[in-house]
Amino acid sequence: MTITSSDLEVRTLGVCRIDSPLAVRLGARQTSQHYVDESDRVLFDDTLAMVTERGVAVDQLPGFEPAGPRRKIYFDPSKIRVGIVTCGGLCPGLNDVIRGIVLQLNLHYGVRRIIGFRNGYRGFIAKYGDPVMELTPDLVGDIDEQGGTILGTSRGGQDSEKIVDCLERMDVDVLFVIGGDGSMRGAMQIAQIAQKRDDNIAVVGIPKTIDNDIQYIDHSFGFQTAFGQAALSVHAAHVEATSAPNGVGLVKVMGRHSGFIACSAALAKGDADFVLIPEVPFELEGEHGFLACLRRKVAEHGHAVVVLAEGAGQEHLAGEAVSVDASGNVRLRDIGSLLRKRILDDFAAADLELNLRYFDPSYLIRSVPADPYDSMYCSRLAHAAVHAAMAGRTETVVGRWHGRYVHLPMQLITRGRSQVDPDGDLWLSVLEGTGQPLRFS
Amino acid sequence: MTITSSDLEVRTLGVCRIDSPLAVRLGARQTSQHYVDESDRVLFDDTLAMVTERGVAVDQLPGFEPAGPRRKIYFDPSKIRVGIVTCGGLCPGLNDVIRGIVLQLNLHYGVRRIIGFRNGYRGFIAKYGDPVMELTPDLVGDIDEQGGTILGTSRGGQDSEKIVDCLERMDVDVLFVIGGDGSMRGAMQIAQIAQKRDDNIAVVGIPKTIDNDIQYIDHSFGFQTAFGQAALSVHAAHVEATSAPNGVGLVKVMGRHSGFIACSAALAKGDADFVLIPEVPFELEGEHGFLACLRRKVAEHGHAVVVLAEGAGQEHLAGEAVSVDASGNVRLRDIGSLLRKRILDDFAAADLELNLRYFDPSYLIRSVPADPYDSMYCSRLAHAAVHAAMAGRTETVVGRWHGRYVHLPMQLITRGRSQVDPDGDLWLSVLEGTGQPLRFS
Amino acid sequence: MTITSSDLEVRTLGVCRIDSPLAVRLGARQTSQHYVDESDRVLFDDTLAMVTERGVAVDQLPGFEPAGPRRKIYFDPSKIRVGIVTCGGLCPGLNDVIRGIVLQLNLHYGVRRIIGFRNGYRGFIAKYGDPVMELTPDLVGDIDEQGGTILGTSRGGQDSEKIVDCLERMDVDVLFVIGGDGSMRGAMQIAQIAQKRDDNIAVVGIPKTIDNDIQYIDHSFGFQTAFGQAALSVHAAHVEATSAPNGVGLVKVMGRHSGFIACSAALAKGDADFVLIPEVPFELEGEHGFLACLRRKVAEHGHAVVVLAEGAGQEHLAGEAVSVDASGNVRLRDIGSLLRKRILDDFAAADLELNLRYFDPSYLIRSVPADPYDSMYCSRLAHAAVHAAMAGRTETVVGRWHGRYVHLPMQLITRGRSQVDPDGDLWLSVLEGTGQPLRFS
Amino acid sequence: MTITSSDLEVRTLGVCRIDSPLAVRLGARQTSQHYVDESDRVLFDDTLAMVTERGVAVDQLPGFEPAGPRRKIYFDPSKIRVGIVTCGGLCPGLNDVIRGIVLQLNLHYGVRRIIGFRNGYRGFIAKYGDPVMELTPDLVGDIDEQGGTILGTSRGGQDSEKIVDCLERMDVDVLFVIGGDGSMRGAMQIAQIAQKRDDNIAVVGIPKTIDNDIQYIDHSFGFQTAFGQAALSVHAAHVEATSAPNGVGLVKVMGRHSGFIACSAALAKGDADFVLIPEVPFELEGEHGFLACLRRKVAEHGHAVVVLAEGAGQEHLAGEAVSVDASGNVRLRDIGSLLRKRILDDFAAADLELNLRYFDPSYLIRSVPADPYDSMYCSRLAHAAVHAAMAGRTETVVGRWHGRYVHLPMQLITRGRSQVDPDGDLWLSVLEGTGQPLRFS
Repeated sequence: MTITSSDLEVRTLGVCRIDSPLAVRLGARQTSQHYVDESDRVLFDDTLAMVTERGVAVDQLPGFEPAGPRRKIYFDPSKIRVGIVTCGGLCPGLNDVIRGIVLQLNLHYGVRRIIGFRNGYRGFIAKYGDPVMELTPDLVGDIDEQGGTILGTSRGGQDSEKIVDCLERMDVDVLFVIGGDGSMRGAMQIAQIAQKRDDNIAVVGIPKTIDNDIQYIDHSFGFQTAFGQAALSVHAAHVEATSAPNGVGLVKVMGRHSGFIACSAALAKGDADFVLIPEVPFELEGEHGFLACLRRKVAEHGHAVVVLAEGAGQEHLAGEAVSVDASGNVRLRDIGSLLRKRILDDFAAADLELNLRYFDPSYLIRSVPADPYDSMYCSRLAHAAVHAAMAGRTETVVGRWHGRYVHLPMQLITRGRSQVDPDGDLWLSVLEGTGQPLRFS
Repeated sequence: MTITSSDLEVRTLGVCRIDSPLAVRLGARQTSQHYVDESDRVLFDDTLAMVTERGVAVDQLPGFEPAGPRRKIYFDPSKIRVGIVTCGGLCPGLNDVIRGIVLQLNLHYGVRRIIGFRNGYRGFIAKYGDPVMELTPDLVGDIDEQGGTILGTSRGGQDSEKIVDCLERMDVDVLFVIGGDGSMRGAMQIAQIAQKRDDNIAVVGIPKTIDNDIQYIDHSFGFQTAFGQAALSVHAAHVEATSAPNGVGLVKVMGRHSGFIACSAALAKGDADFVLIPEVPFELEGEHGFLACLRRKVAEHGHAVVVLAEGAGQEHLAGEAVSVDASGNVRLRDIGSLLRKRILDDFAAADLELNLRYFDPSYLIRSVPADPYDSMYCSRLAHAAVHAAMAGRTETVVGRWHGRYVHLPMQLITRGRSQVDPDGDLWLSVLEGTGQPLRFS
Repeated sequence: MTITSSDLEVRTLGVCRIDSPLAVRLGARQTSQHYVDESDRVLFDDTLAMVTERGVAVDQLPGFEPAGPRRKIYFDPSKIRVGIVTCGGLCPGLNDVIRGIVLQLNLHYGVRRIIGFRNGYRGFIAKYGDPVMELTPDLVGDIDEQGGTILGTSRGGQDSEKIVDCLERMDVDVLFVIGGDGSMRGAMQIAQIAQKRDDNIAVVGIPKTIDNDIQYIDHSFGFQTAFGQAALSVHAAHVEATSAPNGVGLVKVMGRHSGFIACSAALAKGDADFVLIPEVPFELEGEHGFLACLRRKVAEHGHAVVVLAEGAGQEHLAGEAVSVDASGNVRLRDIGSLLRKRILDDFAAADLELNLRYFDPSYLIRSVPADPYDSMYCSRLAHAAVHAAMAGRTETVVGRWHGRYVHLPMQLITRGRSQVDPDGDLWLSVLEGTGQPLRFS
Repeated sequence: MTITSSDLEVRTLGVCRIDSPLAVRLGARQTSQHYVDESDRVLFDDTLAMVTERGVAVDQLPGFEPAGPRRKIYFDPSKIRVGIVTCGGLCPGLNDVIRGIVLQLNLHYGVRRIIGFRNGYRGFIAKYGDPVMELTPDLVGDIDEQGGTILGTSRGGQDSEKIVDCLERMDVDVLFVIGGDGSMRGAMQIAQIAQKRDDNIAVVGIPKTIDNDIQYIDHSFGFQTAFGQAALSVHAAHVEATSAPNGVGLVKVMGRHSGFIACSAALAKGDADFVLIPEVPFELEGEHGFLACLRRKVAEHGHAVVVLAEGAGQEHLAGEAVSVDASGNVRLRDIGSLLRKRILDDFAAADLELNLRYFDPSYLIRSVPADPYDSMYCSRLAHAAVHAAMAGRTETVVGRWHGRYVHLPMQLITRGRSQVDPDGDLWLSVLEGTGQPLRFS
């Protein structure tokens, strides 16, 4: 998809006229460098091969608005009320983001009234009776030590009109939404309804996806922690496989549509012999099919480890029934069970011994606290989100692009999904690291 | 079962006439305290309530032979060849035990010829073609960093006559068997056949069971590491359960006949609300049944965590088919799946929301390296095993009893199985820690 | 020291007449096995070699009172107020003990009024102005995830009369003291002053010492976590030593008077070549002195790792000045710096290359949360302490002896200090594991 | 410094005429996307604000050569011999890089003759007598589990002429140097001497610096692991500081000239109140000096945590003696001890209680194995380095720039040092996260 400058423009509630409290505090000492200049941009693409017209002037190229503090802000910190909500499945770092937002609002801007809505978008809807939570620096001080989210979460959307009713009723000026692409679509609706009603409510998102499948950001928060956890299972599979004659370790990891966790966990431990991801279809049968390759590997090396993204090989499950969860995600048919059975059958048919161990770490991966890197990353995303909201940005998410923290329109990141490029360098590294064939066919 | 003095006697190949190399090396410096005296005993029972006749003289009570170095030994270290084999499922610490035996034999006694048999008892049988492995201090130097066993392992026994043939053919004088109760029965047969054939082969066992179900030892090696790992899943279940409305975390952990891992993991994190173990039957239905208690807990607290030993509640699976694995263990029917389904049905029938997360960490628990405590414990068991073998003990295992390292006859530990006492202090602590009722009925 | 039956007797405030709430709740269902019988005893010694007169009848031998719930208790749970205080240096598990006491009191006995005194014995003294902390199940729910103590702590005693004044003023009936031997001497004074004033205050201790130097208990809480942490430094020293030519890793660990951490950490990783502890004096100079042995080891192996307890080799520091800390502990002169310098000088004098890396993990060891084993152990000690106090025991500590939880008189554990026995099996294992000579002389 | 296109050009030994073995193996199946096109470039700078002339055409901007496999290569894999050396201090990931190079050469290109030189540049010099090490896939299979480097390392350069003599004598065609900027200067000399002698030797570097102070790369390998470890000490300091009245935790971390570890560790745990780095000078005395600010913080909050880079505040040590280590690095005077003393004196002068705990984790940080992220990163750098060398690049290092793996001339990265920009967003995040003043003056 071609990105144009207009794709990268973010919406602002209005003109920023209020001096930033930091600017006030620093007074004469302030240096311009601590503020983002309104004309700064971070180029969207920096690989020459991807710039369509090589001769184009550099300031004509599409660029992101950089994140960071502004000298003038839109909201008066002493008057506003801020809400935070976490939506969808757990992901390492949720509490770090909540903590970072609360501390930044409180310490840096002096905002005192911050509330958390409970259990995702349900928390705005009266009938569920979930009380809001006052969020203070003391309360959030150590929550980064815990996995999960202190606010609770739930899947699925709610009536956006009712959510805006609630925001009006509770005098919420700024809403931070931490959630996946479904939740960001919800957040867009909230922002747009608020706009229609002439409510000056800033809705700022921090995109969350354990699968790392959000486009136009370097990677999503919690992803490193997640694949680090997944790598533990890959290594356990390696230990099991090498401790038994003809041992095979089969590890199913997260990755509904994108194989980032599978690829990264496989590369992290260097223990994997095969990686199967949604982006690269594979044949099971035939001389060059997966089963024959696995059998040969085990015959040669005495053992093998297979890392499987949960969304891989859905084409082999075509006949099975499909259902949809509360968030509207299609429930995947279980490739893990299928593959396990097919491997068992295949070795049995060949009259070969097999010691197959199946690993499904699943929730163990997503409920851990953020590792130090993700903890830092979450803090910095939270800082960026607060600066964006205080400067009146709305329908905007914060992210990192080529190492810089930037603003992105919500519209942009809900358009598609990031996937492992079968012709790109990550997948090439996997092929190199595992030695598996270019394709199973 | 009443234990008598004769139950605790271990068999010796013959009179110890050779000076220990340590004794030679130390010469005049040696102190008698560094050697075990042949008349020492460690009392079998030290709780007064359990001594049947209170007036009996203390030296009449049954006692274990203490482990440790003897001043005189049976084998000439410079001449013998030693074999090591690991059998059955993985358990943290296997490599530590192997390492400890090799280093102790080599450094302390000067034994140079040490071999490892591959893949359990298969390694003695020619048709499998598994070559033996020379074991040197260099080779085993860092293996304690890895989970699993460098020797490989397999389930199931082999023809004991053929194993003794192999030992004779390869001139093995001492065999160390690291394995479970099935493997210890195999080791007894090996020792007895060797005796019949007048082979002076010492067979010494280091009992292994991740379930901690071996009687007459304080606890089995690897058990602390295992329940520590299991506790991570219990905590993950707690995080998931508390992050969703009406969240229930259901964790299935190891424990075929004994609930030690379930109890310890539950106590270790203090996050569990219910613990179900094989030793304590439970009703599912009824006002005081498990399902109703769970429903009430969730209604009151908003969430609950259930820790389930894999061998619990087998009475509810009576109708299902049974099979037997290669070691002759009855394959358990899956209580985890049953309970999961019953909970889902029960909440659905009551028209209650439920966010159930199921955890089955299984192999993740047993493939990790030993934690520092178990690593130390394995080293010391290995030291004790080497001293026992050098002093000519056979059909003997080493263990720890009330903090002392002791010798036990193999016969004794294969007689029964250690279980959680429903009237004992461990289960009481679980009841206190979880607040669950005395029974579900 | 000979222990007699009277040494093991614990003091009780009076007759237990009140039905335990558990007994009431269970009613007809209760089984006698869940209660401790008043005549039960756990034998003090179970090694035959240590029983002076072998022919003595077993019920004449000294024994401990077992810990656990009694059917009748002394205090009325609905009426009492309970205080908790933590004293002295940090130790892994402090928060687990606090949590265990609060939950057990609240859930099991229904005690509602529980307060924490801040910053050790200071918290009772008005002039410091430290407010007490209400302790509720909610507040303590997750504190086991954190190292340190939520109550704060401080070194040093305070006027015991004033402490009892405070207890009277605040209507405290039961005081739990978690601290070292100095704190236990303070607790004894408090209990004795209360007795003189006819205050029926139960003072129950949970002994804390990261050095594991308390006698008559299997080991102290937090010790396994501590030596596990120390083992990380030993392993880091091994990595450094083996990565550089003539690398020497020197690790100073805790252990003022007892080398348990040094011995256990050395055995846990099996990476140590030399272990120096306070219990075993050593010569530095001479052909068989430590420096020459180290030089030879490095010449042969290319590297070496030395584990040093902070209290070792104090004889070599005799000339240096001595001071005393706030708890009255003699400040040790720094053997680490001395040894470092002497090794550098020795290699320089021999004109040998040396890459010496010095490790002093110190506070990193004691500030971590308890590992799963210690977490469980702390919970169970806390349960035992609560049962003891509710049954009116005072001047009593809880501990574990040969695997059983028991009551011990405070008097007993403050009498001396547990040390590594240079003729015992732990030190022998260290000699075997490291290969170091019996003595440096 | 302005970067021009010529600064980014890397040197190649000659024309690539040999088909890549991968290309041969894949045959008709190969897709062009798996190879890097020679005209591809990764833009040096993508922040518009930093492009001097905004109107310049995009293909006129300086760009890096992308890393990755080429269809045609320079060396014949079946004929070459490859050497690897690790230099300077330890850093997490060294073994991962070695492993990645060996596996990639062997599995992907079919190179069989790979040797490791021992103990840094010493390994090339005959007089040290360090034998080379054959490196095979089996040998390196699990070395990523260990910290340190299996090759050993040492500080300091050696005579480059002699090193080239050694390379000639041993028929080494490709040399991989893993080391810091000093080592890269050595590698440049080696490459240039080889060029003068018409030896076609490719010298490719993988830059190593635990301080993350190499310019023109996203970050150095091992850095995330390192600051993650440092964050453990920061957290321990927080636990200690909050557990004692007026507790101050002072943590000295690595960072000779650059405060990246200090900043990242502080942000990772969110526990720090003050961060002191070499890039931002500070006053100790005066009303707005550091000591007064610390005193006020402790007075208000009861505790504080200070993170100190070892190279910070050198201006306060001006009077002290200076020495130089074997690598020619100036030995820093110890700011940790100075600050510790000044804080103690300052509180004493103000007659305030102080519980100061000092942490110096040092070697504990650098000797751990790489975390999963760094392990993956090291593998991918190793892959890139092998592709570069096989394509005949020399005097070249591999790195990552804005997420893409690229080639950089050695010249470029040895020119200067990356530092924390006091006006940049990382330092701003630290100011926001800690709440410390813009400067202490």
